[in-house]
Amino acid sequence: MSAFTLGLNTYVVPFSMHVENRDRLVKGMKEAGVSTGTILLRGGTASERDDTDHENLFRQESYFHYLFGVREPGFWGSIDISTGDATLYCPRLPEEYAVWMGKISTCLEFKIKYEVQTVKYSDNLESSLRTSVKPIFVNKGKNSDSGSTYNPPVLDVLKEVDCDEVKLFPVLCDCRVFKSEKELALMAHVSKLTSLSHVHVMRSVTPGMMEYQLEANFSHFSYYNYGCRNMGYTAICACGPNPAVLHYGHAGAPNDRVIREEDMLLLDMGAEYHCYGSDITCSYPANGKFTERQRKVYEGVLNAQRAVFEICKPGTSWVDCHKAAEKEVIKALIDLKVLREVEGYTLEDMVEMRLGGVFMPHGLGHHIGIDTHDVGGYLEGGKSKEENYPNRLKGAGLKSLRNLRILEEHQCLTVEPGCYFIDYTIDKAIADNDLGKFIDVEVVAEFRGTGGVRLEDVIAITADGFENYTLAPRGIEEVEAVMGGAKWPPMKDVHPELMRKELLNM
Amino acid sequence: MSAFTLGLNTYVVPFSMHVENRDRLVKGMKEAGVSTGTILLRGGTASERDDTDHENLFRQESYFHYLFGVREPGFWGSIDISTGDATLYCPRLPEEYAVWMGKISTCLEFKIKYEVQTVKYSDNLESSLRTSVKPIFVNKGKNSDSGSTYNPPVLDVLKEVDCDEVKLFPVLCDCRVFKSEKELALMAHVSKLTSLSHVHVMRSVTPGMMEYQLEANFSHFSYYNYGCRNMGYTAICACGPNPAVLHYGHAGAPNDRVIREEDMLLLDMGAEYHCYGSDITCSYPANGKFTERQRKVYEGVLNAQRAVFEICKPGTSWVDCHKAAEKEVIKALIDLKVLREVEGYTLEDMVEMRLGGVFMPHGLGHHIGIDTHDVGGYLEGGKSKEENYPNRLKGAGLKSLRNLRILEEHQCLTVEPGCYFIDYTIDKAIADNDLGKFIDVEVVAEFRGTGGVRLEDVIAITADGFENYTLAPRGIEEVEAVMGGAKWPPMKDVHPELMRKELLNM
Ligand SMILES: [Mn+2]
Ligand SMILES: [Mn+2]
Repeated sequence: MSAFTLGLNTYVVPFSMHVENRDRLVKGMKEAGVSTGTILLRGGTASERDDTDHENLFRQESYFHYLFGVREPGFWGSIDISTGDATLYCPRLPEEYAVWMGKISTCLEFKIKYEVQTVKYSDNLESSLRTSVKPIFVNKGKNSDSGSTYNPPVLDVLKEVDCDEVKLFPVLCDCRVFKSEKELALMAHVSKLTSLSHVHVMRSVTPGMMEYQLEANFSHFSYYNYGCRNMGYTAICACGPNPAVLHYGHAGAPNDRVIREEDMLLLDMGAEYHCYGSDITCSYPANGKFTERQRKVYEGVLNAQRAVFEICKPGTSWVDCHKAAEKEVIKALIDLKVLREVEGYTLEDMVEMRLGGVFMPHGLGHHIGIDTHDVGGYLEGGKSKEENYPNRLKGAGLKSLRNLRILEEHQCLTVEPGCYFIDYTIDKAIADNDLGKFIDVEVVAEFRGTGGVRLEDVIAITADGFENYTLAPRGIEEVEAVMGGAKWPPMKDVHPELMRKELLNM
Repeated sequence: MSAFTLGLNTYVVPFSMHVENRDRLVKGMKEAGVSTGTILLRGGTASERDDTDHENLFRQESYFHYLFGVREPGFWGSIDISTGDATLYCPRLPEEYAVWMGKISTCLEFKIKYEVQTVKYSDNLESSLRTSVKPIFVNKGKNSDSGSTYNPPVLDVLKEVDCDEVKLFPVLCDCRVFKSEKELALMAHVSKLTSLSHVHVMRSVTPGMMEYQLEANFSHFSYYNYGCRNMGYTAICACGPNPAVLHYGHAGAPNDRVIREEDMLLLDMGAEYHCYGSDITCSYPANGKFTERQRKVYEGVLNAQRAVFEICKPGTSWVDCHKAAEKEVIKALIDLKVLREVEGYTLEDMVEMRLGGVFMPHGLGHHIGIDTHDVGGYLEGGKSKEENYPNRLKGAGLKSLRNLRILEEHQCLTVEPGCYFIDYTIDKAIADNDLGKFIDVEVVAEFRGTGGVRLEDVIAITADGFENYTLAPRGIEEVEAVMGGAKWPPMKDVHPELMRKELLNM
């Protein structure tokens, strides 16, 4: 049995995980009425920066990784639908490759390593496809997060034979939405190590440090101890006003502010292992002690998580989860007198008027897996019920939802409510005929420049609820204790409502 | 005066460095007979992974960085040749950018930040170019390391007006070959911090660790302490047989071997700061003590560096440097009895027969700067003498040279001799009619699987010699002392021949 591991005590991913992924795809195609034919996917290719010979570190394309788990660039893969047999096509490397890149694996070695039925050289691809069972199913469809289209490969043979560009995509996406037990175990592992890396960072914070030093500490901890060479996405290490910049940390805003005593920090970082990533956000005061105001904002966001968790189970609509979170954020802001209650308007009215979108302009969360924003949030033509795949909603917050599906067992999602003080959205709301009356201009002014809070957990939907894979300190007393030097994991789980089932077994 | 720094005590790069780079380009164009016109370059653009919304961390395109130092994606830049005035064109960002990406800088703010005469929005680019001085010079040419072509941008206006694709490229490349004082200071800084990061790693090595943990330690040290978010290239952390794989460390061979007591390590890692990178290789025994054999191979490679350094000054041919290095490697191998002297053949004959290429198949080194393999090694149409730009040579080692130029002041290069035991090249040599007789098949067999040694320094050519920017331990007694816990830098420079001028001032 072959497996992926980076050695020492790093996690062992059996390649049977990818065998199962292929089996599930074949099963899905059969359920969609396709009993014969050949599925064809192209793996990612090596790339260089601009016109130079600077080689970008290769990371496998996500669909291909899902089905084959291949680490090297330049492969192709096919699956015979009726037999389920898989073939990999590897590049035929020149002898000199051994000098520069390392030992050249034989086809037999790849066959054993990747647990497929056949391995051939990719220069045989077109001739093999000519004799393979038709039609050939290739992947084509729109990624609802990027808006970009996954395009099928261009090959002469595909113009000559019966080729289907429609049926594969929805089935393959839906397979990725519903994680297998082995995938869930891997997601749990990567979320656990991401949680522990956050704890490491939390303990290293001192006012006077730079934001990017927290990024350095996180990625070192997760690589050195757990073999995570890549982060799932660019680290957001925001202090002071920066938490109000939702995608802070990019090259134009590269985590380069000094952390001050009075700052709240918002750290959104996730490690990746064998191309499966986590996505966890922790927020806490730089000096380890919450002020009264920081506490109220934080508790509002934590209550938003709790409100979601209360209804988080198969059958619940993700939109309802989003609104449940917004309601708690609005309640906290009323308590802080940033928002005022207005006669004739209930809390539900405030939610429906999209007041939550002023302070939380993003969606509640997203599918997560091989991509941070994993596929299938708005899938056309999937096997599930029609109502699972509606069009995007309108209105602040709702329009940013990356997923509108009904929750089902084996989905893996982030739950990431937040409360931010963003001049642009606040000013727009104050000037708004409907929303302006709810906002206390003077009180909100005191919160401007203080950033915001986000708490982001990775969860998996179970048969009767969910499990929280995020095992980070969440309660205020937990955060303050850990920052003060206390042991983590704790001796006792004082927040069972957060469903951190493995917390005490870490 | 504007500057780039990542805060705290990280290095401060004045933007006048880029102003000078532009001035030198304009001067170069005038020397090439061009007195009027407009230079146009396109900056790098943001990119996402495959069809997903996973944003790759933006790193500026190298030519654009050289001239403008802009950190954000999506810019264009132009320079009026007669006045030398520079214009930047920045993207006009939607208001909502402020919510997701951060405060939107005004044109005035960019003008001050990047020390240019004018900043406009890029939606004005084409109309501005219509009224700018003609011809418009765009960059087009072949990168001699990758073989790829830098292609000029495609714009309607460029089809309508007088546009020159020939004259800019050789002048711009030649500007990059000869570093300014400010560029040299930055190269010295990044090589110093890279040296110190190597020392940090050297002290952290223990048998039983994984190779990738050394990569983790290096990148953490250089990011945490010096603000280097990117490495110049993928880290090569090779132990056991792996040093014989010249580009080890890529995704297919990801530094995943356990380090053993008896291993030699070869660590080729360089940090990057403000897009200027270093490239340093250290080799040493995992347990901190050289065996007699390890010592002899190592001393041979160090002697190769010394032989190069003896002749390293303006006027020397890089090919002669390469051969001088090979000669020392061959001498060491004769001493080790891997090679035997054959009657009728001098040492010089052995060099000319390309015996060195068996054990050092790569070139001696390369220009270095904004790209690790910096431009200009084989430049057609440059301003310097014709003999500076010959065609590639033939034969093992020589054909891999990335540069055939005569050394001149202000060039910045790596000197990286090595001696590797590579089955493929050794077997080929044994079977070769000319080379086979020099190789002792039984002795060389004892070295198979032991990897090899590379020592790589970054140097700058001065008026009468060179300065070595690499301030790492090099002498065997230095390496053993540091691995045993001794202070670095040392109290005394016992190897003045290595020209580590700033060693004691670190
Ligand atoms: Mn997220
Ligand atoms: Mn190099």
